[in-house]
Amino acid sequence: MTARPENPHQARILRLLRQDGARSRAELGEVARLSPSKLALELDRLTKLNLLESGGLAASRGGRRSGIVRIASHLRFVGIDIGATSIDVGVTNGELEVLGHLSKPADVRDGPEAVLEQALDLVGKLRTGETTEIHGVGIGVPGPVSFLDRTPVSPPIMPGWDRFPVRETLSREFGCPVLVDNDVNIMALGELHAGLARAVGDFLLVKIGTGVGCGIVVDGEIYRGVTGSAGDIGHIRVSDDGPLCTCGNTGCLEAYFGGAALARDAQAAAEAGESPFLAERLAHEETLTAEDVAAAAASGDAAAVRMIREGGRHVGMVLASLVSFFNPGLVIIGGGVAGLGHALLAEIRSVVYQRSLPLATGNLPIVLSELGDTAGIIGATRLISDHVFSVE
Amino acid sequence: MTARPENPHQARILRLLRQDGARSRAELGEVARLSPSKLALELDRLTKLNLLESGGLAASRGGRRSGIVRIASHLRFVGIDIGATSIDVGVTNGELEVLGHLSKPADVRDGPEAVLEQALDLVGKLRTGETTEIHGVGIGVPGPVSFLDRTPVSPPIMPGWDRFPVRETLSREFGCPVLVDNDVNIMALGELHAGLARAVGDFLLVKIGTGVGCGIVVDGEIYRGVTGSAGDIGHIRVSDDGPLCTCGNTGCLEAYFGGAALARDAQAAAEAGESPFLAERLAHEETLTAEDVAAAAASGDAAAVRMIREGGRHVGMVLASLVSFFNPGLVIIGGGVAGLGHALLAEIRSVVYQRSLPLATGNLPIVLSELGDTAGIIGATRLISDHVFSVE
Repeated sequence: MTARPENPHQARILRLLRQDGARSRAELGEVARLSPSKLALELDRLTKLNLLESGGLAASRGGRRSGIVRIASHLRFVGIDIGATSIDVGVTNGELEVLGHLSKPADVRDGPEAVLEQALDLVGKLRTGETTEIHGVGIGVPGPVSFLDRTPVSPPIMPGWDRFPVRETLSREFGCPVLVDNDVNIMALGELHAGLARAVGDFLLVKIGTGVGCGIVVDGEIYRGVTGSAGDIGHIRVSDDGPLCTCGNTGCLEAYFGGAALARDAQAAAEAGESPFLAERLAHEETLTAEDVAAAAASGDAAAVRMIREGGRHVGMVLASLVSFFNPGLVIIGGGVAGLGHALLAEIRSVVYQRSLPLATGNLPIVLSELGDTAGIIGATRLISDHVFSVE
Repeated sequence: MTARPENPHQARILRLLRQDGARSRAELGEVARLSPSKLALELDRLTKLNLLESGGLAASRGGRRSGIVRIASHLRFVGIDIGATSIDVGVTNGELEVLGHLSKPADVRDGPEAVLEQALDLVGKLRTGETTEIHGVGIGVPGPVSFLDRTPVSPPIMPGWDRFPVRETLSREFGCPVLVDNDVNIMALGELHAGLARAVGDFLLVKIGTGVGCGIVVDGEIYRGVTGSAGDIGHIRVSDDGPLCTCGNTGCLEAYFGGAALARDAQAAAEAGESPFLAERLAHEETLTAEDVAAAAASGDAAAVRMIREGGRHVGMVLASLVSFFNPGLVIIGGGVAGLGHALLAEIRSVVYQRSLPLATGNLPIVLSELGDTAGIIGATRLISDHVFSVE
């Protein structure tokens, strides 16, 4: 059984230590606004629950040296980030520092049993030699997740996952609390916890992977909408006469840009003789990917650079509307395709700054994620640690 | 000096009575979760502050009959709703029931001094014979309002209003607390308080007046964004090659639809001989308005019906994106042009249900406001009463 705090004071202490690491009792009392005797009582209970440990004495601030406390060092959270074409798994301590991280290609269309088994394998490899208990598991999946029962619902690119009991399956396996969310939401939580959004209350995280999605943070919390589908921007219409989308409409953002659209365009450019670089690659590989486009662009291939620019323009057009509507304090661009880098970012910025209201873009930074593929893992452990570090 | 509650219990009691009207002490104690002695103490203090009054005995629930309390009947709030082409003013009691409402055409471009003077005149007419004090004034203006200093900022259609001290001016006049917000936000507050959104936490209010704007409610509170411009959707791009907008871009939503765009299109249709009805009107009037288009459509004029349908389609296209992004529980269409009625609504619904994610539209009602032009007044008094019924 994973121990949980017994009251809101204890929950607040654990969250403070999770965010800021070890602290002296004196500092903690100030931040948590607890009297020394009340603080001592709660710290004592948390120690008895095995959630907290002492760590020597702090430097003197003039009087008696204050004892240092930290989240118990044996605490472990597991974060699992299922993408459309990859699995990332990480183990963190109670401060959500990533202690180990493994990644492998995988196809989410293989279905939940096969994909979760691969994820469990990766966790097993990370835990070799570790005997400590897992205190919570967070997992993100690349499709909509029902807010009420926390299972994937009608996920367009995930046959077999509809209503699959991900939470129960993993909970049985690990014997600890498990929470499931959308992959984009956990990425936004990762940015909120450890990324560029740490000090920002209201921000957007645009994930450009195989598809395109948006994490919405309002006042430091993920905004999920009434049925949990908020931020699902991949099927926003960019144009009436655009490419056919897998959803049946035409001109959706995802039909224009994202990993899948880029692969399609790269193939077409190679076959049409528009890109010597991509044609050369295609001669040696069965299919092309977004990474090939990135390599082509890096080598100066004009067709690849054009694809990235046009993609950035389409993302920018949708984002410009959302910035006018939502007036965020920060926009972070992340996900595998964000690895295309600054050419993409420059194009997105150019369109948003031109098309959104000046009042909404006045002080609006649009930046690339600095967390890379750990954002999802950190976010998944943040999700489950928010739950574990709360009163039952 | 307007009295204010002294502690959070008193504030909660006042807000409960504002929402639900008179209640027995027994009921109030249950809802407010206060012991009878604590409740009696707070009710006594509120009575002494002249914020509360007793109103006889409730029907017996088996034991001793419980006394009824209500917000003091002498309390008055004033709501002022400045539109681009009109002023609405209302006086309410402490339960925000509209006791009197006056409206007149006005041009916001005449500047703050002239417009506020007209608003004060209207308030004066409503108060004739009343000797009671005003306890708070809420006012909405048709442009962005800075969240920090609560003054209008760079309002595109409001020359002279930039940074004008609306709050201080009215506060001096009435000798009571005043709050300013965007006209669309106060309309959304009105719907939240007394309209179709009473039981809905997350909803959008699309106001179609001279321009187009959107009020965003998250968890029962107006979401304003980091600089207060959230919901400013009038300049979202509908198409690259659309009409020139006053903002300098082309193809903005407002350039396609809204009171101003309809007037322009009506004029063009009349002059081109496409609409006998509008041509007839134009022969007797200097300019045409959205009301003329409504009358033409009601008479079966094909050009007018087409204008309304196309307008609905453009609003629907923008709204479809926002519904996918925000996943609201309800969308309310309001504002003067919403008076065009069900042809407009049908077109908006058709586009949103076709273009938004099924998961986001599954249980999504899209409805016309039932409050009409009192929404802004009620919302403005809700804004200021939230402030007056809170601890200083």
